[in-house]
Order: sequence, then C-alpha cells, then structure tokens
Amino acid sequence: MTEIYKTISPADFFYRNRDIAGFDNPSRALYTAVRELIENSLDACESANIPPDINIQLIQSDENDYQLRVEDNGSGIPAENIPPAFGKVLYGSKYTLRQLRGTFGLGGTMAILYGQITTHRAVKVISSTGDSEINEMEIKIDIQNNVPLIEKSIIRPNKGNWHGIIVDLALEGDYLRAKSKILEYIRQTAVVTPYVNLTFIDPKGAFYTFKRVTNALPAPSKVVLPHPYGVDVEILNRIIRKTNTQTLANFLTKHFHRVGKAIAKKFLKFAGLEPQTNPKSLNSKEVLTLVRAMKEFPDFLPPSADCLSPIGVTLLKAGIDKELKPEFREVVQRPPSAYSGHPFIIEVAIAYGGKIPSEKDFILYRFANKIPLLYDAYSDISMKVIRKIKWHRYKIKPEMPITLLIHLCSTKIPYKTVGKEFIADKPEIEYEMEWGLKECARKLSRYLSRKEHFKRQKMRFTALSKHLSKIAEYSTKLAGKEKAPDIQKLLERMES
Amino acid sequence: MTEIYKTISPADFFYRNRDIAGFDNPSRALYTAVRELIENSLDACESANIPPDINIQLIQSDENDYQLRVEDNGSGIPAENIPPAFGKVLYGSKYTLRQLRGTFGLGGTMAILYGQITTHRAVKVISSTGDSEINEMEIKIDIQNNVPLIEKSIIRPNKGNWHGIIVDLALEGDYLRAKSKILEYIRQTAVVTPYVNLTFIDPKGAFYTFKRVTNALPAPSKVVLPHPYGVDVEILNRIIRKTNTQTLANFLTKHFHRVGKAIAKKFLKFAGLEPQTNPKSLNSKEVLTLVRAMKEFPDFLPPSADCLSPIGVTLLKAGIDKELKPEFREVVQRPPSAYSGHPFIIEVAIAYGGKIPSEKDFILYRFANKIPLLYDAYSDISMKVIRKIKWHRYKIKPEMPITLLIHLCSTKIPYKTVGKEFIADKPEIEYEMEWGLKECARKLSRYLSRKEHFKRQKMRFTALSKHLSKIAEYSTKLAGKEKAPDIQKLLERMES
Repeated sequence: MTEIYKTISPADFFYRNRDIAGFDNPSRALYTAVRELIENSLDACESANIPPDINIQLIQSDENDYQLRVEDNGSGIPAENIPPAFGKVLYGSKYTLRQLRGTFGLGGTMAILYGQITTHRAVKVISSTGDSEINEMEIKIDIQNNVPLIEKSIIRPNKGNWHGIIVDLALEGDYLRAKSKILEYIRQTAVVTPYVNLTFIDPKGAFYTFKRVTNALPAPSKVVLPHPYGVDVEILNRIIRKTNTQTLANFLTKHFHRVGKAIAKKFLKFAGLEPQTNPKSLNSKEVLTLVRAMKEFPDFLPPSADCLSPIGVTLLKAGIDKELKPEFREVVQRPPSAYSGHPFIIEVAIAYGGKIPSEKDFILYRFANKIPLLYDAYSDISMKVIRKIKWHRYKIKPEMPITLLIHLCSTKIPYKTVGKEFIADKPEIEYEMEWGLKECARKLSRYLSRKEHFKRQKMRFTALSKHLSKIAEYSTKLAGKEKAPDIQKLLERMES
Repeated sequence: MTEIYKTISPADFFYRNRDIAGFDNPSRALYTAVRELIENSLDACESANIPPDINIQLIQSDENDYQLRVEDNGSGIPAENIPPAFGKVLYGSKYTLRQLRGTFGLGGTMAILYGQITTHRAVKVISSTGDSEINEMEIKIDIQNNVPLIEKSIIRPNKGNWHGIIVDLALEGDYLRAKSKILEYIRQTAVVTPYVNLTFIDPKGAFYTFKRVTNALPAPSKVVLPHPYGVDVEILNRIIRKTNTQTLANFLTKHFHRVGKAIAKKFLKFAGLEPQTNPKSLNSKEVLTLVRAMKEFPDFLPPSADCLSPIGVTLLKAGIDKELKPEFREVVQRPPSAYSGHPFIIEVAIAYGGKIPSEKDFILYRFANKIPLLYDAYSDISMKVIRKIKWHRYKIKPEMPITLLIHLCSTKIPYKTVGKEFIADKPEIEYEMEWGLKECARKLSRYLSRKEHFKRQKMRFTALSKHLSKIAEYSTKLAGKEKAPDIQKLLERMES
C-alpha cells in the first residue's frame, strides 16, 4: 500500500474536525453558533467602547432547519474585510495580545461553515462602519482552498449612520434540546455584562429581554507587548526580523512589556550579552541564550493588568442583583497575577438566598473573559478549587441556596479545547481562585452567623415580650409594691 | 481603535495554541512528543504489514534539555515527502477514511515545532524506503508561512536495504515529572500490540524492553468509501466535482460504501431523483435533497467493519497475559456497529488477580485505535459506562485487584480534543461498551463464585479428611463391627 501525502487547508482541517470546535451534533452546534456570534458582537462593541445592543432571532424554517440572525451596534467591519472575516478560517482581528472573548479567531467562521455544510446555503452579512454605505454580502466558503466565495454583493445608502454587523445564516439544529443551554448562556451573559441590552426571540416566538442597568462599560482592553517571561524563540525571531532598533538595549525597551532602560541594562549583564549588539546580528545560539535568560532573570516587573478588562466589583454586584436577586452577595476582585508571562485577574462572588434555589450542590457560574462556560465543568480548574475548600469550616453546606461565580480574565485563557469548554490547571490561577472564594466564604459565614444571632434574639424577644408584663405584675405583687416597673423601655432597649 | 485584520498560517495557529495539542508544559510536552512519534512509527509499520521494531532513546543534554530519538523499521518515506511531512502543519498521509492512530496529521509536526521553539534547533530525519539510498535531512519549520526549511540534506548509500524512519529532535522537557506517564504509555502500548518489539532507554540509562510474543499482526486497515449516513453537502460536492460517472445510479454505486445497484435504485426512488440524471447537473437544492435523503433512507447496509483493524481476542489475551500476568481474564469483542456512518468495534477485557494490585477503584486502561489514553479519564465515555454498571450484582467490588481494558477502534474516533485525551459520548459507543463490560463481568462473577465454591469445598474436605478416620473407627465400634469402612474411596470421590 502506497501512502498518499497531501496538504489540507485549515478550513478543511476544522471542517473534518468540527466536533472539537463544538459543532458535534445539531443541538450542540446550534448552541455553539449562537454563542460564537454573540461573543463576536460583544467584542465588536466593547472594543469600540459602545454599550452593546444585541438582537438575536432564531426562526425554525423546517423540522431541523433554523435561521439564526444576530445583530449588533458595534463598529462594523470595512467592506474589503467582510469576505475573509466570514469566509476564511484563521483570518481575523483577534490575533493580538489583548483580552478578548474570541481567542482562536475561529468560532464565527465555523458557525458559517457548519451552516453551509448542513443547509447548502450562503451566509448573509450586512455591515456598516457608520459611513455613507451599508454593505450586504452573501458568502460561501470554499473549504478545500479556504477562500471566501462572494455570491452576492450589494451596497445601500446608510442614511441613519447605522454602524454594526448583522449575520444571518441557515443551519441545522435542534432547539428543543439546545434551548436550556442557550437560555442559560444568555442569562449568565447578562449577569456579567449588566451594561448590555440583549433581546432573544426564540423559534416559538418567546421574547427574552435583558435590559442594561448601567451605561458604564469596563475600560476596553489594550493590546500589550509580550512579557519577557512568556517569550520563546519564535516570538523573539519574529521581533528581530521586523525591528528597526540598532542595539539590544533599545530592542528590549521598545518591544517588551514593562522593560525600562535600567532593567534592560541589568538583564543584558545577567544574560552575558553586550547592550550595543545589533539584534539582527545575533546568531542562533545567542537567540536561545537571550530567550532562556528572559525566563530566568528574576527582576522583570510582573505584567501589568492595565491591559485587562475585568468586570469590576460594582458591575458584578449590579449584574448579580439584577439577574439572581439574592438575599446576600459578596464580590471579590483579587489583585492581578500572572502565569508564564500572561497577566490575569480573578473575580469571584458568592450569592446566597433570595431567588436562588437550593440544589444538591452549589450552583457554579464559570466565566472566562466574560464568556459563560457551560460544558465540562467537571474537568475545569474551578471544580478542583471548590472541592479543595473545607466549606464546613465556614458553616457553608453545598445544599444551601448558593451560587458561586468565578471569572478569569487574561490576555491568554488556558483553554483545554478549541470549543472553549474548560480551563486547564495552572497553579497561579488555582491560588487566586482559592483565596477569592475563601474570602467570599468568610463574609457569607459572618453574614449567616449574624443572621442566626438575630433570629435567636428575635425569638427571645418575642417570647419575652409575651410574658414580661405578667412577670412584672407578679413580681410587683411579690415585692409588696403597687406600681409595676415600665417594661416598655426594657423591650425597646433589647430590640435595638 | 482600529481593528487590524490578518491571516495566520495553520502552523502559526497551532504554535499559538500548542497547549490544546498537548504541548502545554515541559513535562506534558515531553510525554506528548514521545507518544506522537511512537504512534507515527507504529502506523508506518502496520500500514506496510511489518512487525514493528521501535527503539526510543531519550538523552538529557542539559538541565531541561532532552534529545529524543525514535527509530522504526516501517516503510520509510520518499525523499521528496520528507520536508513537508516533518516541516509543514496539515500535510500528511492520514487524511483518508481508515483506521489509524493518527487522526489530525498534526502530532509529529507539533513535536518538532515544540522542539524548535524551545531549543532553536532543527529536527534530523533519516529515512529510506528500502531502495539504494538513505536520506538524511535537517529541517526547521517557517512557522509564519507554514513551509519547511531544509537546513541540510545528505544522501547515503543503503547497503543493507534498511527501511524505516529515524526522527531525532531536541526539546525542552521534564523527565522526572513525565516519567511515570511515559512508562505507563509504553507498557499499555505493549499490552495492545503484543506483536511489537519496543525498547526504551531513559535519560538515566535505564533500559526498558518489551518483546513481541507473536508475529501475527492484525490485518491492516483499508481505506473505505464514505458511507451515505456520514455524508454532508461538502463531501458530496467534492465527489461530484471529481467524478466521471454520467448517471446518479453509477455515481452512487461507485463512490459510496456498500451501495449496490439495487439499493441505489431504491434509494433514488426514495429521494425522488432520476437515476439517469448526470450528477454534475444537480443544482444546489438537489444536492441538499440528495444529502438529506441519504441520512433518512432506512435501507442502506450498515458500514462494513472490514476496514477496521481491531486487536482481536487472541492478541489481546496474549498482551494481557504477557504484561499483566493475571489469575483470570476475559476478553470480549463486540460485533461491529456504527455511529453517524462511521463503523466501529469495541473490545473489552477484565483481568483479575495474579500480579494485578488492589487499588481503591478498578484500574482502567483506555485505548482508541490502539493508542493508550492516559489523561482526562473522568471526562471519558468509558467512565460514564463504568459508573452506570451495577457491579454489586456481579459481586464485583472496585477494591478488588481488577484491571478493565476498553478499546474502541473506528475510522473516526470522536475525540473531544486535539490532544486525543478522551472520547465524546456517542450513544452507540456507550451501548457496546456497556454490554461488552457486562459480559466480562458475568464471566468474572462465575469464575469468582466457582473459586469461592472450590475454596469452601476444599476447606470442608480438609476438615473431613482430618476427622473422618476417627468417625469411621468410632462408628465401627458403636455398630459392634470390627473392620472400619474404607474412607479413602469416599475422600477421592469428594475431591474429584
């Protein structure tokens, strides 16, 4: 048997392996398509600092056929970028070092690809950047060659200066089975993005609406330079290729995160390299020396969290109050930390009582860069942390009406799958999650014991106020006096 | 902020996301590199029906630097294919419908890529197809452009008609932490491939050797045509593009798995299409009609398991006896089944006692297309099945010295991750695993109760044989007789 060798395009690869990107059956695929388009829309709005208005409509056109339409009011996309952005795999604006929902630059195109192979129809994209034109295109993907095929292209006048993107695609799905996950996804999104207006019309015509309670967006994330701790030979070579700096000293301060002149100088001494060396003159071995020294040098400043866009305590509280309506909630934002040169921030919350139902176990909301993660919780790092904490020490039991919320934001989320289901174990992340949860647990514990205290006091008070007048009367008689003492004052003091 | 759009190459994509392919830290990366190269070697030998001789050597060249060398005696690789096969992502011979260890055609190149970015060194590949030349090349990957860079190329005479491939690469690693997984991987490989000679020299110079106990290889897997149940619009369009058949009737019988003339005719009637129609004349809607009818037509024959290469009961028993040395083992091969048009076979085994240790829970060996799966067992479908079975009904307890072995072979393993850690839930697969395990459990249960029975009988016999002579003597006296009856005959009858 002769082996036949061939190249396949990235579109072909992900087409063949669409299950690993979350498109493994009609129910899951429908869920993934909805979520990927919502995430792209939210990214598009937040990057442009626009309070997002997202409208989602899902129409059942046949037994297993659906029409999915997602509209946003983001910054839109220039006409020339529309075909590749929607008709080409591994093309996009997400390949930079910053905090975005999208990481793989894959999800939206995969939804379109899945729609195409299950319904044989093109995707319709309508977009404007707010200028005088609205572009409307119908696009298919040439999967074997990974190029967009424009089936139709129309330009309309943009009278109202509308900006945003509308994606309208046909796909096979199973809403009956996907419904609970889709609704849960949207609801959890509303919790962490209380500055979003979101509407969803489901195939039965049910109308779900989530109104923003604030116009305050978290500061948008910034693109950052690579931190020396996260640099490998490939990154370094790429920077050397395009730099126009003439000396290693300038090279370091210009292209790396938080490397100033003094640190650069100290570092080069540590690495045994001359500050005046031209970076382009480094040989292969010196490049390796430089990279390894970067990993070992102890005095680089930790990556700055400026580039991150956490939700923040105020917004998280607003989101939790709005959607979960708990009796008590505590939100903790941990100080910024880093793993392998990637900065991250953990935000955790405990919400208790009120409208939160009691289950066998805690209800867990997991978020990564503001994306709700709904699948494979058992493999997630947060589960490991939750199992590790000795909850009984806080007098907290899993069957109490408690929702735990854990949010990781980072320029690089260590997802274990392309489908973005769960987060890998990283000791630094585990540590922050654990201490955040413990702080929340302490606060809840204190609240619960104070509540218990008041409850007992209340009961005592009720009992006393019933009998105190009789006791007073009786004691007065016993003492041979005539006027009973004023018990009202006593009761008032107890109640306060 | 203006969004910057760009295309990245597939090599760049997997470089950025190497963690999802199993290259997330030095320990895991070392393990993954070893396993990917072993799997490629085994595939290369088995495809050519050669009993594999695999030699692995791992040398520690510096604190965290290793030199990994894997040599096989497979069919080798033609000179012109060497650079892309080792220096280009998404190039290979695995993109066909057949049962192979490799599925993504990615692992070997990823190991090389990881080696390159951590050590800045080229991979050395030596290969011959058994002709007069041995090719030796040193290759790097241009990651941004996904093209191989040949740094050195030598041709040597091949006097001994050697054939095979030697891959020799430098990479960062952590053998101390990877050791147990690597050894476990090799040992489990030896269990399911008792026809392999495998040696491993570890960085401390320890020499591990696994000798074949048989020369009988499982029949190599064949490339199959797509089954109609697994066809989508994309597959159909590709076949239409390249077919030279003139009628739909011929088109179906020529290009699809197990579609004969009679079935093709019946199917086309079902689909409402004319048998004489030229496939190239179908419009977009008709193509969709054809695909959907393929999924709904009830009378296609199930995919044939001819294309699969299970291990087989005999070889599995040999492997288990050789490596696990149990007191009892039962192996069951389930009849072929299929999910979404992909044929599969489940093989399961229970091994009990002997050299198998007692743990808190069953020891589980998972295999997919003869690959041991060592990570993320909790998310695997087999765990779900094991939890579902009511073991107490078989008087089997998790703390008994039991190893369960589950092997899934298929033309398409539904991995949930690119790192090939675990298998997704598919009801058809779950069903076969469950019934295979139950059959094994029944056999073990019978063995255990028979063993218990014999044990009791033995005890009774020992007790009786001690006292019977006295009883006989005493009874003889009581009966007033002189000669005691011959108890030897009685004892013999009991023992048989």
